[in-house]
Amino acid sequence: MTTLAQFETVTVRLDGHVATIELNRPDKLNAFNAQMRYDITDAFDVTDGNPDVRAVIMTGAGRAYCAGADLSAGGATFDYDNPQSRPRHPRLTDAEIGRDGGGMVTLRIFESLKPVIGAINGPAVGIGVTMTLPMDIRLASTTARFGFVFARRGIVPEAASSWFLPRVVGVSTALEWCYSGRVFPAAEALSRGLVRSVHEPDDLLPAAMAIATEIAEQSAPVSVSLTRQMMWRMLTADHPMEAHKVDSRLVKARGKTADAKEGVMSFIEKRAPNYPDRVPADMPAEFPWWTDRPWE
Amino acid sequence: MTTLAQFETVTVRLDGHVATIELNRPDKLNAFNAQMRYDITDAFDVTDGNPDVRAVIMTGAGRAYCAGADLSAGGATFDYDNPQSRPRHPRLTDAEIGRDGGGMVTLRIFESLKPVIGAINGPAVGIGVTMTLPMDIRLASTTARFGFVFARRGIVPEAASSWFLPRVVGVSTALEWCYSGRVFPAAEALSRGLVRSVHEPDDLLPAAMAIATEIAEQSAPVSVSLTRQMMWRMLTADHPMEAHKVDSRLVKARGKTADAKEGVMSFIEKRAPNYPDRVPADMPAEFPWWTDRPWE
Amino acid sequence: MTTLAQFETVTVRLDGHVATIELNRPDKLNAFNAQMRYDITDAFDVTDGNPDVRAVIMTGAGRAYCAGADLSAGGATFDYDNPQSRPRHPRLTDAEIGRDGGGMVTLRIFESLKPVIGAINGPAVGIGVTMTLPMDIRLASTTARFGFVFARRGIVPEAASSWFLPRVVGVSTALEWCYSGRVFPAAEALSRGLVRSVHEPDDLLPAAMAIATEIAEQSAPVSVSLTRQMMWRMLTADHPMEAHKVDSRLVKARGKTADAKEGVMSFIEKRAPNYPDRVPADMPAEFPWWTDRPWE
Repeated sequence: MTTLAQFETVTVRLDGHVATIELNRPDKLNAFNAQMRYDITDAFDVTDGNPDVRAVIMTGAGRAYCAGADLSAGGATFDYDNPQSRPRHPRLTDAEIGRDGGGMVTLRIFESLKPVIGAINGPAVGIGVTMTLPMDIRLASTTARFGFVFARRGIVPEAASSWFLPRVVGVSTALEWCYSGRVFPAAEALSRGLVRSVHEPDDLLPAAMAIATEIAEQSAPVSVSLTRQMMWRMLTADHPMEAHKVDSRLVKARGKTADAKEGVMSFIEKRAPNYPDRVPADMPAEFPWWTDRPWE
Repeated sequence: MTTLAQFETVTVRLDGHVATIELNRPDKLNAFNAQMRYDITDAFDVTDGNPDVRAVIMTGAGRAYCAGADLSAGGATFDYDNPQSRPRHPRLTDAEIGRDGGGMVTLRIFESLKPVIGAINGPAVGIGVTMTLPMDIRLASTTARFGFVFARRGIVPEAASSWFLPRVVGVSTALEWCYSGRVFPAAEALSRGLVRSVHEPDDLLPAAMAIATEIAEQSAPVSVSLTRQMMWRMLTADHPMEAHKVDSRLVKARGKTADAKEGVMSFIEKRAPNYPDRVPADMPAEFPWWTDRPWE
Repeated sequence: MTTLAQFETVTVRLDGHVATIELNRPDKLNAFNAQMRYDITDAFDVTDGNPDVRAVIMTGAGRAYCAGADLSAGGATFDYDNPQSRPRHPRLTDAEIGRDGGGMVTLRIFESLKPVIGAINGPAVGIGVTMTLPMDIRLASTTARFGFVFARRGIVPEAASSWFLPRVVGVSTALEWCYSGRVFPAAEALSRGLVRSVHEPDDLLPAAMAIATEIAEQSAPVSVSLTRQMMWRMLTADHPMEAHKVDSRLVKARGKTADAKEGVMSFIEKRAPNYPDRVPADMPAEFPWWTDRPWE
């Protein structure tokens, strides 16, 4: 286990080919503040750029995953014109003024080149839970609790959760949770499909690591990275022909690589694969096949 | 409990901050006719416009929820050019000729400013079940039965159910139910996700009322109303950036209201909230952020 | 039981009003090759064009459903520029060069005029499972196994599965399966919603036949065919008004047919229906209401 980066509120470690991004304000239950927004996005820049990283686990230090927005400004917390509200961060650009900080985080995770597994180790409330929605796979500890509490704070769901949440749990459950704002246990998150499994606290990170390690050891990293974007992007394609156009070109591009030869031959020879291609250096020229959506 | 409106086929009552819209042709199993179409849309105009209404329950009088289209015209029922078919209603405008009546109802419910909870107390067949699809949360009695019977009547799914149903239960279940047209019990509706829970008949309305009351008492009404439209509208947004644009503006607009201050302070002070803003008077200028889709 | 068509790798039989399309390379575990691609699309041309066919079951001969791409070219399998790779089929047109063969199959199944029920009788791996995604209803034998193995072969998900799979099982499960590429049993396919039921091997085809027969006997064939396209196409419509426009016109067109009269009268008279309209001859002028998406 090596430390790849140590930011003020976030730590990035590497164990084999699996990176762990840990929210690290345990004395504040990892409450989200302006610094954490930059630290999370910086952490994903680290994992994206490091060819040794083939999968990412995100979790929280201490007993909480993330208790939500830091409410230390009290009634002024969400009044962004009030000087008592969240301070303007030195890195905030003029172009970013007016953007929800949680959404900047979830859009960054959405762009991740590596698969992202959420290991939700404790309470995940407000931005604490909406930041997990662009992750690919979510696991929870029995001690996890969840709350889409925005309507109880007088605001609205943020972090682009109105886009993500109905796609993960369906519109009815999304509305039920966001209307009431109540905090609910891991069992309900499991039964409604927010998390794929619930584990005893000590078993959570090993379970996440087992999933991440299987991906890292068995699958070609470039194939995994392309798969991530294909599935998320085609969620909104208006016809399967759009997928057919993209996958035809990607199968052709990937099919002539050494990875494809190794994938077939290691299967035929019943041995562990050893793929040469790395992310991001060996992503095909066809990637990305979309144009970015600007803030405006 | 006060009566807010008494239409020919629909009654609207208020209990605390929760309105109940009741289909009221019990001797006809609440079969849907042209009058009911106008009465339902009028009922939602009442609930939308009344600032005391924070949530809506919709249910049926007597032993049925709604048995479907009134078939008293026999084989001419769906032949809209046949004078024996459903009579042209005095309120039908020229612009509305050719529009499916069920769809006019479901599009109206889709636009509701208040959350809508379906309490399906008995058989819900044809338009009886498709009218529940734009509702946010559906609960059923053990005596409820469901049938997407259109193909057994020689017609096709209506009331925009081809848009709603696959989004609620997935395309495979939607097709299975609509292909066969068979009537199925509440347990199957539960297992496939059409309803979120099944209750003994006497427990149905109390269960719906408990959900509605929690929303009305705990959450800011304007936040709830915005949440409704955010979740439904972002179901079809082609990128999470669209949600980020909308929620950034709405969080900013709502964050400086007295509701947001009250939401945070009541949480910190561990007391019941008392939000001043009302729907529709205090909806923010950012609402609606979309343009209507015209019939053409 | 009559044979409607016998292609090199696929057999089409008719039993009552139900056609069965059987993959028929049992000695190769029905591995997919260029010939099978044409045979499957030809088989759907047969079922679409035959007015006696009201539903289609697709299954595999022998102990497998389809073991995936034929890997007999070894490491050159997916290298389409390599002469050892899949041979250019005599029917491949210049316009089709560069198109993924699996996608040509799934897009053809997507266009089917008749409902399609997958009876997955054994291993379904790679294109073996992705070809089932545009089917409407999937049933599996207890002996079925599934694998989205593309990343383990160094390529990417194909057959437009990035469009279909997240719509069937949600984006999280789709990613989990495609990232790891592991082969999983029928029970997991059931719990995640890939198949609607799991059956003992001898019960699989009878169960599929029961579903198909109920559709064929109870529902108007033209209504069923229209329903198929309505549900799939409206999955991507950006507003329920789009469905309202289409279903208003289709209800009107179908409501004046003899099918609609028969549907209502057989229901009122509590007798089996006898619908006169057939597919494709009696599809309404409103069909199709969309324009095709070209390969480009």
